[in-house]
Amino acid sequence: MLVNTTYVRVRYADTDKMGITYYSKYLEWFEVGRTEMLRDIGFPYTQLEKEGIGLPVIEAYCRYHRAATYDQLLRIVSAVKTLPRVTIRIEYKIYNEQQELLVDGYTTHPFIGKAGKPVRAPKALLEVLQPYFKADPLDLPSEADARRGANGKNGKTG
Amino acid sequence: MLVNTTYVRVRYADTDKMGITYYSKYLEWFEVGRTEMLRDIGFPYTQLEKEGIGLPVIEAYCRYHRAATYDQLLRIVSAVKTLPRVTIRIEYKIYNEQQELLVDGYTTHPFIGKAGKPVRAPKALLEVLQPYFKADPLDLPSEADARRGANGKNGKTG
Amino acid sequence: MLVNTTYVRVRYADTDKMGITYYSKYLEWFEVGRTEMLRDIGFPYTQLEKEGIGLPVIEAYCRYHRAATYDQLLRIVSAVKTLPRVTIRIEYKIYNEQQELLVDGYTTHPFIGKAGKPVRAPKALLEVLQPYFKADPLDLPSEADARRGANGKNGKTG
Amino acid sequence: MLVNTTYVRVRYADTDKMGITYYSKYLEWFEVGRTEMLRDIGFPYTQLEKEGIGLPVIEAYCRYHRAATYDQLLRIVSAVKTLPRVTIRIEYKIYNEQQELLVDGYTTHPFIGKAGKPVRAPKALLEVLQPYFKADPLDLPSEADARRGANGKNGKTG
Repeated sequence: MLVNTTYVRVRYADTDKMGITYYSKYLEWFEVGRTEMLRDIGFPYTQLEKEGIGLPVIEAYCRYHRAATYDQLLRIVSAVKTLPRVTIRIEYKIYNEQQELLVDGYTTHPFIGKAGKPVRAPKALLEVLQPYFKADPLDLPSEADARRGANGKNGKTG
Repeated sequence: MLVNTTYVRVRYADTDKMGITYYSKYLEWFEVGRTEMLRDIGFPYTQLEKEGIGLPVIEAYCRYHRAATYDQLLRIVSAVKTLPRVTIRIEYKIYNEQQELLVDGYTTHPFIGKAGKPVRAPKALLEVLQPYFKADPLDLPSEADARRGANGKNGKTG
Repeated sequence: MLVNTTYVRVRYADTDKMGITYYSKYLEWFEVGRTEMLRDIGFPYTQLEKEGIGLPVIEAYCRYHRAATYDQLLRIVSAVKTLPRVTIRIEYKIYNEQQELLVDGYTTHPFIGKAGKPVRAPKALLEVLQPYFKADPLDLPSEADARRGANGKNGKTG
Repeated sequence: MLVNTTYVRVRYADTDKMGITYYSKYLEWFEVGRTEMLRDIGFPYTQLEKEGIGLPVIEAYCRYHRAATYDQLLRIVSAVKTLPRVTIRIEYKIYNEQQELLVDGYTTHPFIGKAGKPVRAPKALLEVLQPYFKADPLDLPSEADARRGANGKNGKTG
């Protein structure tokens, strides 16, 4: 599993007259979450675009547990739980400074190529992602793993 | 069922560098849809607020079929399919000028009273809504309905 | 002078925790104003773009007199006071339903061609604009005008 | 003079179909600039609000020199050049990673008290601000200063 944590500060611009964050803003923060996740693994979204791949959204879901209020520093946790094939699904949880869950949700994105047609996840991205989807690093390595030299990337998900 | 149709024009501000509408904007247009629906039945959201009731969002879902592009005049169809009790669920479909479905989705809202606590749907609102959940006026009432003196579809939402 | 009037409704999304419209939203409404003005004279912005011309903003100014509040129907008056050459300047006034002035301001836009370089206002646009910059139709035509057959376009602004 | 530097990353949500940042977004970033400036001097905007003071905007100006593009990390420099009395004026410059000036502008804000009426800048804020408007501490006081008792206001315009 690939997991990333990043932070956003609630702006006045994000609030509405109910005194809380307007409900569509969380989708912007989901964008911040997945963008920083891709940057963090060394495959920023700008590189995907340079290779002619776009990741439009085909599905978005958001459950609102508690309101984010002005000036709070929010923690965005983004996760990819299965290696993408023709789509990538990212799950999000957003917490306030008291570590209360404010929102959870997900977005689903196809990989779209230069011709505007769906394509498979690019190999270069899969190579970067694969280590995160190896066995749980706390599991004892299998004999096979031990023989291969138990790839060092497991630690990344630890 | 309560159904409403309203229109929005895609602004430059709504688009992103992919040349299409940014995915969170549809949630704003869902807001336009439900606001105009409430206004249309003579119970505008401002009146709800005057009576101390708010309708924050606890759930939002959006499926993106086709992109809305700049300057298109979009048709928003909003629907309430069951009479609300402690929450109201609104479904949306957004179409372009060629009547192609762009997005569908829903939002769910609790009724929140002055103390910030969930309350039942206010009576005044229910009275306005109820006629939309009666049997189809083109249906002939069944004998059973006639005997009860009320249309049979009430049970559906009960 | 070219003048156009159009309307927007204040959304929940436009408000902030002060209970009023967030200050950057008026710039979006300025966009609505100038877009509808161009559409109204038969030269929509989409046509400009088709001809390879863009109108990015190089200057924007906004003075806030009164707050626009939720659900108000605002009147946007946009005006071009001088025939554009290499830039076009649009002035705006936004009023509430009581005809109180909420905001006034302006934006300035160069005409940018396909190569990303400034160009002169396209001829086709100028031809459409010129009638609005003739003498005030209530002025008595000068002798010269009379000889030319007093420009027929006066009716457009009448 | 009070000066603060902070950073924002350009989101997909901030861009438009021209491929660049939509022009109203810079006003949101001006908000980020002044918010971080107030936080930095130990007088966050939330504290002002707790004391019943609001800072609505009465004027905003923006000049656009170069476009901010997707994923750039922008530097926002905010400055207050004169000690506020009944209004505070903040100037902004936004730079890209190549230190090219993208946008400059300003906002003006009255201090509004609980009754919704303009008030003077609160004493507690002025006490925090005053040190920034003293003469440059590295300057040797002139004889004239020394005679006048070197009142700190000289620095105001310096």
